Amino acid sequence: MSLLVIGSVAFDTITTPFGKCKNVLGGSATFFSISASFFSPVNLVAVVGKDFPESHIRFLNKKGVDTKGLVIESGKTFSWEGEYNWDFSNPSTIATNLNVFADFNPKLPREYRNAPYVFLANIDPEIQNKVLSQISKPKLVACDTMNYWIENKKKELKKLLKKIDIFFINEAEARELTGEASLVKAAKDIIKMGPKKVIIKKGEHGSLFFSENSVFSTPAYLLESIHDPTGAGDTFAGGVMGYLAQAAGSVDKSLRKAIVYGSVMATFAVEDFSLRRLGTITKKDITRRFNKFKKLTHF
Amino acid sequence: MSLLVIGSVAFDTITTPFGKCKNVLGGSATFFSISASFFSPVNLVAVVGKDFPESHIRFLNKKGVDTKGLVIESGKTFSWEGEYNWDFSNPSTIATNLNVFADFNPKLPREYRNAPYVFLANIDPEIQNKVLSQISKPKLVACDTMNYWIENKKKELKKLLKKIDIFFINEAEARELTGEASLVKAAKDIIKMGPKKVIIKKGEHGSLFFSENSVFSTPAYLLESIHDPTGAGDTFAGGVMGYLAQAAGSVDKSLRKAIVYGSVMATFAVEDFSLRRLGTITKKDITRRFNKFKKLTHF
Repeated sequence: MSLLVIGSVAFDTITTPFGKCKNVLGGSATFFSISASFFSPVNLVAVVGKDFPESHIRFLNKKGVDTKGLVIESGKTFSWEGEYNWDFSNPSTIATNLNVFADFNPKLPREYRNAPYVFLANIDPEIQNKVLSQISKPKLVACDTMNYWIENKKKELKKLLKKIDIFFINEAEARELTGEASLVKAAKDIIKMGPKKVIIKKGEHGSLFFSENSVFSTPAYLLESIHDPTGAGDTFAGGVMGYLAQAAGSVDKSLRKAIVYGSVMATFAVEDFSLRRLGTITKKDITRRFNKFKKLTHF
Repeated sequence: MSLLVIGSVAFDTITTPFGKCKNVLGGSATFFSISASFFSPVNLVAVVGKDFPESHIRFLNKKGVDTKGLVIESGKTFSWEGEYNWDFSNPSTIATNLNVFADFNPKLPREYRNAPYVFLANIDPEIQNKVLSQISKPKLVACDTMNYWIENKKKELKKLLKKIDIFFINEAEARELTGEASLVKAAKDIIKMGPKKVIIKKGEHGSLFFSENSVFSTPAYLLESIHDPTGAGDTFAGGVMGYLAQAAGSVDKSLRKAIVYGSVMATFAVEDFSLRRLGTITKKDITRRFNKFKKLTHF
């Protein structure tokens, strides 16, 4: 079944210990879409400026991403500049230029309003709420957020959480949102806020999944080297949601595999800058790495 | 088969955010022995002072730990005082009193010199080398170390590593020993130094196992709260080595399960101060948690 994503499409300028790349394709919805596209059709809702190259749109379409909802506004595309040091977990932001993204207030195309699977990427929870209200009876709604919204739009975020099936959050944010140091306790608190399921992303340490009656813990896949972690979290979510949308059946039955597929997709994202690696892999590469992941973790 | 451990038996004074305990039973060989004793008979080699209570020795014996090699010297028992803050990964040392441990230079009882399974807990690698030379044809030798020896006795440590089958090391130490940020690369470098197998301990993030042709990654078991992490690494090693000693067959065949048993034992160690929890569990508690671990990680 098809999967709708609302988020950012951007230009990234990134410096890591391995090099620098300028104005490459980035944005939460981009990484999510490309990752999910390996599993199910994706409908993308975002905004870009007149400077956004045709070739990027062709790339998205070629991967099975429908761009009917990608609005081109007069002005410049959202851009972000960041720098990573060796620990790779927290980039320093050098510049954020919201540009056309500052007034992002999407009106969904009519044919997207019955979307069964929905992912609200990390944007202002006020907008996440507004978009969600345009969709009639989705089967599964997931969202992401960030520390900025926890600190500045907590009320809107909490309103959103009541309507969420799967909440993606990283470990620092889970602690910040709940005031609990223990992730087990934090997850329990988050479930009380509304989401039926919580996935806590721990970067190079894997992820944790919690629902009221189930827990699942995965280490990260082992890579010799990480080149650029930008987009890893969105790529992870894209793999999870893409797999769930194609499985279409019971979420509980598919979720563990979905999370492992998400982890596998994230490993491709971090192996090169931008979508250079993620955009060139095949289904076979994914299956091979999924099987390796099983071998790495089962006993 | 029986398992020989050489290390420290000590008094710990520990402060955590949950409270303080004074002069309780601690030491690397103590945690290791009690943990391993659930799987196989253990022979303990260590030194204590005249102040070491009979009741501690009775406790060890009751658990199946042979204390023929526990020498009582005139003087005081080694004691350590440390404090943990909320992150629980790095205690600040407030005081270390080596006392009788300062001249620890064990001469193995004759009946221990044919030990098939040997664990050299974290002590001066010079002494680890000397002890090992007293054992004739062990089947499996494992050791632990710490940053202090990497910084101050690297030559002796490297000499030891040539004779080691399984090397237990934590992630920071693995990076320090090899100068590699990537744990995959660090493990490869360590295997080149001699050990056939390396287990990298990542605390709350689980552990990684590497040999020339195999990799195994485990997340940590999920606990709602950690009360005192002292001894977790030695308890982990005790579970791993105890399980291998009782399995007695091919190490490669048993190692994944051994590592999970080690992780399970460590969770009991951290649930209370000293050996309060670890010393009172049953085989049934261990099996139950092992099965939960499988449910937590398999997909």
